[in-house]
Amino acid sequence: MDQLPPTRERQTVGTTMRNCVVACCVLFLGACSSAPSSLRGTADLATVIARADGQVAILDTTAHQWTGKVAGLGDLSHASIVYSRNGQFAFVFGRDGGLTKVDILNQTIVGRAMQAGNSIGGAISQDGKLVAVANYEPGGVRVFDSQTLDLVADIPATIGKGPDRSKVVGLVDAPGNRFVFSLWDSGEIWIVDFSSGTTPEITRFENIGTQPYDALITPDGRYYIAGLFGEDGMVMIDLWHPENGVRRILDHYGKGETRLPVYKMPHLEGWAVAGKQAFVPAVGRHEVLVIDTDSWKETGRIAVHGQPVFVMAHPDGKHVWVNFSVPDYDTVQIIDTESLEISGELKPGTGVLHMEFSPRGDQVWLSVRDDNKVIGYNPYTLTRFAELPLPSPSGIFMSHRAGQTGL
Amino acid sequence: MDQLPPTRERQTVGTTMRNCVVACCVLFLGACSSAPSSLRGTADLATVIARADGQVAILDTTAHQWTGKVAGLGDLSHASIVYSRNGQFAFVFGRDGGLTKVDILNQTIVGRAMQAGNSIGGAISQDGKLVAVANYEPGGVRVFDSQTLDLVADIPATIGKGPDRSKVVGLVDAPGNRFVFSLWDSGEIWIVDFSSGTTPEITRFENIGTQPYDALITPDGRYYIAGLFGEDGMVMIDLWHPENGVRRILDHYGKGETRLPVYKMPHLEGWAVAGKQAFVPAVGRHEVLVIDTDSWKETGRIAVHGQPVFVMAHPDGKHVWVNFSVPDYDTVQIIDTESLEISGELKPGTGVLHMEFSPRGDQVWLSVRDDNKVIGYNPYTLTRFAELPLPSPSGIFMSHRAGQTGL
Repeated sequence: MDQLPPTRERQTVGTTMRNCVVACCVLFLGACSSAPSSLRGTADLATVIARADGQVAILDTTAHQWTGKVAGLGDLSHASIVYSRNGQFAFVFGRDGGLTKVDILNQTIVGRAMQAGNSIGGAISQDGKLVAVANYEPGGVRVFDSQTLDLVADIPATIGKGPDRSKVVGLVDAPGNRFVFSLWDSGEIWIVDFSSGTTPEITRFENIGTQPYDALITPDGRYYIAGLFGEDGMVMIDLWHPENGVRRILDHYGKGETRLPVYKMPHLEGWAVAGKQAFVPAVGRHEVLVIDTDSWKETGRIAVHGQPVFVMAHPDGKHVWVNFSVPDYDTVQIIDTESLEISGELKPGTGVLHMEFSPRGDQVWLSVRDDNKVIGYNPYTLTRFAELPLPSPSGIFMSHRAGQTGL
Repeated sequence: MDQLPPTRERQTVGTTMRNCVVACCVLFLGACSSAPSSLRGTADLATVIARADGQVAILDTTAHQWTGKVAGLGDLSHASIVYSRNGQFAFVFGRDGGLTKVDILNQTIVGRAMQAGNSIGGAISQDGKLVAVANYEPGGVRVFDSQTLDLVADIPATIGKGPDRSKVVGLVDAPGNRFVFSLWDSGEIWIVDFSSGTTPEITRFENIGTQPYDALITPDGRYYIAGLFGEDGMVMIDLWHPENGVRRILDHYGKGETRLPVYKMPHLEGWAVAGKQAFVPAVGRHEVLVIDTDSWKETGRIAVHGQPVFVMAHPDGKHVWVNFSVPDYDTVQIIDTESLEISGELKPGTGVLHMEFSPRGDQVWLSVRDDNKVIGYNPYTLTRFAELPLPSPSGIFMSHRAGQTGL
């Protein structure tokens, strides 16, 4: 276990970029306008990214149909979504630096900011007041008021004393109104603490490893884990004890043991924690790794159909579902978390990019890109109960994420 | 470990009671009526029971104010609430056998059934289609269509071959569209499986122990645990393996070691599972027990201020909050789950009956009955940020429960 001491500094809010942010605030549409006029709850709604068209489709998981679509969201390759505290608004992080606030009930764009040139995901604070975006160009994190999309804090990811900047990856929210993210170019992890207001306290962990490329936070918000592209192993921070620094885990994880070309680095947000085990996609291998979440050591490997991309736990913890990179992306496999054996397999179509369970686990929805479909399955019987057309669907995001740390 | 083999039978839907059910269906109010006309999400709403008035108050946890109140719900002593799949409807289980469906957006009663003479809680199925109520008189469970409140199944809790019936307690939902409950009079646990439709398959576990009085299900829906009033210890069923029968745990838990009068049997739904530990209110003692959730054995005891009633985990797992029975019900204590020490204490007022965290844990709300107040605290700083008047408040229910197994 390496323990690297953090450095700490207080950073004032950057205001220079505020004027560069193009924020167009569309008036809130009253309920008595057109189609979406009846009051309805949001707990059974989801959003699905339609990558080719720059659209987001809104899914009613009870009626098994789209309630509507919202267009004009720019480049949605590798886009992701977080939700407002009340579940009404989806914040869509586009690849082109666009941050769009979509009202999923009125089905309108209520705000949009081209806040950077190139972005990779974002997060919403525990209190719901701040939305943070991870940027490649210019490298750093920008933090916005979730109500107005006004810039609240600009945090350049400076390398050393600057002026060079790093690309930012693996941005998540953490308890205590914190954000945590990694710096690709300089091998750092930063904790940015907004618990005292809009002027963050920043803690930098330097020399954590080479090229962190993605990260995850455990569902309770305690452990932040980053994957390294430039070397084997991963790094972990216990956010209950940031003073203990960074710990290396899974020294054999990564490129060193790769025997196959890596078609796609697996998504770390796809780690499944079920009971006391984590299920982790191996890099470039046809395997899912089993990790004990007490010791954070590997306890087993499960042979699977292809190179895993997402490994998602069913909410009941009994099964995890795995999809694969090209050329095996027509298949989904189901692992029994007790026997660690493959207990089921589906061939939903070509290009299964993402999977999302309903909060209580009665449904699972799959995006099948090349077939231009989103398919709903009963995860117990594996019967297909819905098949909805959508051009090039990718990420699926249940609005239940509004109440889930790190999502 | 005792393992009792289950018996199994298939039971047809009881229809005789259908005509006795008084279900008044109020027309769905359109959105363009009066005050609550703007579309809004439900993820930040909660409901609070105002026991003295037979009312439910609807709390906006973002604006820190009531959005409205709905009256006419009958006897709400010991009342509880579950939510519809979309978060719009609260099903209120009254002590007088009343089942009321409240639209928390339009703030109206949309259905009400006096479905029994005396009831004790209920549950909603994993797929959201069925609402089940646990009845004392007549003893059994009645299951209703969540849309219409039509009776779908009547399950008398027969003792042996009948005709005598048992009071039913500890009713919860479980994965696989199951309900699980306990029979006070006959010492049984039943699993009722609705996965094949509205005709349930019933599995009976007999001779589980004397007078089960309440139960809980772990957050993943795997373990059902019932407390025994008539003897020491508890009983547990692993719902992944019901064929293994019932296991006895915590043999010393309960009355046998009581040295103080028991003012109130603790709520088992108040068990907090944080990481790999469960925190359990001791019966009649000024202690919280610490249980290892691998072995289900007691690993520690924490001395607290009074007889604990609810022990609730903060969503980040770092702390659990404890309230107490009379005469100590002016106090709330906070336990650090790592050090197992008391790390904080509050005196919110007289009669702290319930506590509920916001889903991501930025807030905690307390019902202070004798002061006729509901108080919001920042659980990190322990500062009070809201104080809302309400006559005799008791249970607080965040709508996030719509997506949570067992809640």
